[in-house]
Amino acid sequence: MKRINIGLLGLGNIGSGTYKVLEQNRSHIEKTTGLDLRITRILEIDTAKDRGFTVPQGAFTQDADTVFSDPGISVVIELLGGVEPATSFMASAMKAGKSVVTANKAAVAENYELLTETAKENDVKFRFEASVGGGIPLIGAITESLCANEFTELLGILNGTTNYILTKMSEEGRAYDDVLKEAQELGFAEADPTADVEGHDVCNKLSILMSLVFGKRMRPGEIPTIGISKITKEDIEEAAAQDCVIKLLASAFRTPDGIECFVQPTLLNKAHPLADVRNEFNALFLKGDAVDDLMFYGKGAGPFPTASAVLGDVIAIARSL
Amino acid sequence: MKRINIGLLGLGNIGSGTYKVLEQNRSHIEKTTGLDLRITRILEIDTAKDRGFTVPQGAFTQDADTVFSDPGISVVIELLGGVEPATSFMASAMKAGKSVVTANKAAVAENYELLTETAKENDVKFRFEASVGGGIPLIGAITESLCANEFTELLGILNGTTNYILTKMSEEGRAYDDVLKEAQELGFAEADPTADVEGHDVCNKLSILMSLVFGKRMRPGEIPTIGISKITKEDIEEAAAQDCVIKLLASAFRTPDGIECFVQPTLLNKAHPLADVRNEFNALFLKGDAVDDLMFYGKGAGPFPTASAVLGDVIAIARSL
Repeated sequence: MKRINIGLLGLGNIGSGTYKVLEQNRSHIEKTTGLDLRITRILEIDTAKDRGFTVPQGAFTQDADTVFSDPGISVVIELLGGVEPATSFMASAMKAGKSVVTANKAAVAENYELLTETAKENDVKFRFEASVGGGIPLIGAITESLCANEFTELLGILNGTTNYILTKMSEEGRAYDDVLKEAQELGFAEADPTADVEGHDVCNKLSILMSLVFGKRMRPGEIPTIGISKITKEDIEEAAAQDCVIKLLASAFRTPDGIECFVQPTLLNKAHPLADVRNEFNALFLKGDAVDDLMFYGKGAGPFPTASAVLGDVIAIARSL
Repeated sequence: MKRINIGLLGLGNIGSGTYKVLEQNRSHIEKTTGLDLRITRILEIDTAKDRGFTVPQGAFTQDADTVFSDPGISVVIELLGGVEPATSFMASAMKAGKSVVTANKAAVAENYELLTETAKENDVKFRFEASVGGGIPLIGAITESLCANEFTELLGILNGTTNYILTKMSEEGRAYDDVLKEAQELGFAEADPTADVEGHDVCNKLSILMSLVFGKRMRPGEIPTIGISKITKEDIEEAAAQDCVIKLLASAFRTPDGIECFVQPTLLNKAHPLADVRNEFNALFLKGDAVDDLMFYGKGAGPFPTASAVLGDVIAIARSL
């Protein structure tokens, strides 16, 4: 069996989910892939917290360089979130010859060129399936199975919090503030919900998809973005009267003048496949010139779905080593 | 640019679609992958037919061995359909050191072990994304992005003809024979519709998915299979009265006693994501222990969607050469 040692940056919610899924499915992964994947070093300050599983204390470090300088580690998983120090850590790992897997949409969207070029210069792999659509296998499909297509259209429901709020407003006739409060109580929305409800999270994901689907680099700040915080009960009722729903969509279209993209609340006819994507689910609708209409649907967030994507990337890299 | 010469077995509908998509998207494929893919030999009897594009006459052959013995060819695409001679041709290509791509569900379902083992013994690749779900990138997702998951449930609408018939029966209150006749006139159903309407086509696809999703080999003859030819207007009305639709489903479940699988018309609650999959569209619903609910939706047949999957496989192989 091929053994692969992994350095993990961050043992928060997503990091813990990744650690747990790897341990729970260890024998399944070994059987189907022939890989013995071991998380041997973990960058994390909080070493005492009860996470429901036991990490060998010797695995913890508070110095990222001890991960990058460990000659036994070939893959680094970055799950710290935020642009920095995550970007610098990923670049350092690559320069030390480690392949990198991340779920960090903010860092990938902001520093796409730096990260992809640093990986290329150092002849290592860089994968970020979990950064868009959580567990839904979008990026692998776009960059591999579908790469004979020229894409003409992309529509995505890429944020579970806002889709949950809009679904409840639409199905239960409730007001935005009321549903947001409930979502916060249920843990579907953060105490400070700005990044979700103002569309910044979706904007980061659309920035990443623009590079992959259309080969066009758009920094998050260049994508016109409107969130859902101004949507009223009356807007939802007017949409319903036109046989539509309102969804917060990431949209991109190939036009005669180039590729247009934006994030905004959008009227969607109830017959569109995306109209039935309810609650916290995410989905991406794509139109390719050969494959025609496609939709991918699933859980766009959460520790276990994200872990599924992170470990899929780790396995893809491990198979190529 | 890396040049890859390809041998194509069969220039019927799917073969012609593949040839056309490769020519139309040649510059896009070269730009995004750095690959110069060339179909240099074509096994086909009908060399005179007007297919809307020109094949260099020197490319045609009526002797499969001239494809397998061509040292310049590294990938063979099999698009003849049917179990034989397709299986023997694929095995011969592999023994001659060629990687093989196929869309042939009947041959893969019937001879899964032979084909995967012959590929392994000869250290070549064998890919068959197009054999299930046409252009929908299912197999790559299951075997790569999702392979950290143990799957517990699989439900698939995997045949466009029967889904078209059931949709029209359900939405227009029409009888089976009436809709079948229309589907035949529109080209959605074959003159002899048996393989579709009796579920044999879906059974082949479920056989392939069983190996990939559950690691359990089930020959098509071992999967209990019931088609839709006995479904009446009354059955559809009764389903609707229970807030359900009838879909021809490929189903598989992990149970305490092992994995059960079957193909049959199934009552599906209208709230299920698969219930909205209409007309000729296909979809696969999967539940994984980490990723939770997932659905993939798109065109399960047709020359261009199938070409998308075939060329995706060719590109994956070409990248690894």
